[in-house]
Amino acid sequence: MSDAFRFAAEIRVRLPETDAFGVCYHGSFFTYFDVARMDYMRAIGLMDALKAGRASNLIAHTSADFKSPAGFDDLLTVRARVAELGSTSFTFEFRVERKEDGALVAVGRSVHVTVDGATRRPVPLPAELREAVRRAEGPSLKERS
Amino acid sequence: MSDAFRFAAEIRVRLPETDAFGVCYHGSFFTYFDVARMDYMRAIGLMDALKAGRASNLIAHTSADFKSPAGFDDLLTVRARVAELGSTSFTFEFRVERKEDGALVAVGRSVHVTVDGATRRPVPLPAELREAVRRAEGPSLKERS
Amino acid sequence: MSDAFRFAAEIRVRLPETDAFGVCYHGSFFTYFDVARMDYMRAIGLMDALKAGRASNLIAHTSADFKSPAGFDDLLTVRARVAELGSTSFTFEFRVERKEDGALVAVGRSVHVTVDGATRRPVPLPAELREAVRRAEGPSLKERS
Amino acid sequence: MSDAFRFAAEIRVRLPETDAFGVCYHGSFFTYFDVARMDYMRAIGLMDALKAGRASNLIAHTSADFKSPAGFDDLLTVRARVAELGSTSFTFEFRVERKEDGALVAVGRSVHVTVDGATRRPVPLPAELREAVRRAEGPSLKERS
Repeated sequence: MSDAFRFAAEIRVRLPETDAFGVCYHGSFFTYFDVARMDYMRAIGLMDALKAGRASNLIAHTSADFKSPAGFDDLLTVRARVAELGSTSFTFEFRVERKEDGALVAVGRSVHVTVDGATRRPVPLPAELREAVRRAEGPSLKERS
Repeated sequence: MSDAFRFAAEIRVRLPETDAFGVCYHGSFFTYFDVARMDYMRAIGLMDALKAGRASNLIAHTSADFKSPAGFDDLLTVRARVAELGSTSFTFEFRVERKEDGALVAVGRSVHVTVDGATRRPVPLPAELREAVRRAEGPSLKERS
Repeated sequence: MSDAFRFAAEIRVRLPETDAFGVCYHGSFFTYFDVARMDYMRAIGLMDALKAGRASNLIAHTSADFKSPAGFDDLLTVRARVAELGSTSFTFEFRVERKEDGALVAVGRSVHVTVDGATRRPVPLPAELREAVRRAEGPSLKERS
Repeated sequence: MSDAFRFAAEIRVRLPETDAFGVCYHGSFFTYFDVARMDYMRAIGLMDALKAGRASNLIAHTSADFKSPAGFDDLLTVRARVAELGSTSFTFEFRVERKEDGALVAVGRSVHVTVDGATRRPVPLPAELREAVRRAEGPSLKERS
């Protein structure tokens, strides 16, 4: 399963990311997805485009399924990939494992709509983004147009 | 649509809940869902059971769809309801509106599995929880057994 | 002591604000100070000026002393006052009590420098801010010029 | 100045750690101090003692001075050292620099009281902690008994 993920970020669970039930708070995983997404963008050479507004996007949807708890100070492997490119959107998938034993902690997904930086209206995926993701993901990438 | 929601929490967007894009960070909505869920539990008389471990549950899934941005200091109406009771799980639905103009900001959902406080294994929904939710939700509640 | 505080916000400790030690994470109190500070600004009629950039300020310093732990779902009284007005700065003081029993949970302080919204350089306290704070605090307010 | 710091953590500013003013939220620095403190404890071999409750401590005080803003995605160098050992307390100092240009972003401090894990009453600094810190800090460490 994790073969499909060519990129991973390592994230250690911080104390303020845990809760009084003694485990990593479920909402913290959306922050981890964000960190992995940004690291992925940097890894495929898109961070400058993102910062310059050439790949502006809004998150339209996100979800997570929680499989087993993570604890304070656990080192997590947060795998990320773009699974699908649409005409004005792209979809990330995430898989979080505890590094020590490989236990599956959570899986997730987020859908992003590319927008004009000024009007916030949807615009076609920038060629720069489409091509960088194609290079990174290879033939497993789904494309709809 | 919001007729189905008999409960709502009012939450004002705090500065640390916004991000550098100038809006409420998408992950903050999972905190708002949590606040509304707890307020709901308190409103239907289940908070003591929750704190005493008689209604222990683990979150198995959550998702959100983002419809329009919320900004710093915006007052939000976060509607919550239990939409479904399963044999060992229950499902919350959320609807977030900007109070000022009623604009739909986000919708969400979370699925919780009731567990034994010690073993963390799924257990049948406690009668106390099932009955309190039935009283709160009336005939719109779906039940599976 | 709390006589000196004419303003208070009520804040309930949220689950993500607690940590794996079972108590409210110490860093969460800086968020509570922020909420109380904004509520104070709103109460004395300065929120519009703040949002319009007529009372722009940068935080230069903050501190907190932790006296006793707060737990999940505790209702806190977060008292706030402006204790001092300088020529280009103002100082907030905070006092956090658990509402149920009045136990002192934390005290804190923050120093803010009023700045030009564009250049971020210090500017004299706007008369609008100085006068609103004087009206709110009365003779206990210290002023340096 | 930073010569006195023999330990540093590298932390990249995450999107949820920024705010609507476009910069890293001031409260996020207390999280960064926490991360650096834990990394320091791990580096000097005290993390196992901490997790096993042999070095339990409560934070009694913390403060920060903000010197210049940090932005989204900035890489920060967060220097940490134990500056002082008391009879039942120890004091951390922090210095945050932007890695790219070395600009001073913030300085901070935190005071921790060693406590009995069960009663939460102050206890003398464990010898294990005192010795590990002495080895790490050398002659610049202040000690009071």
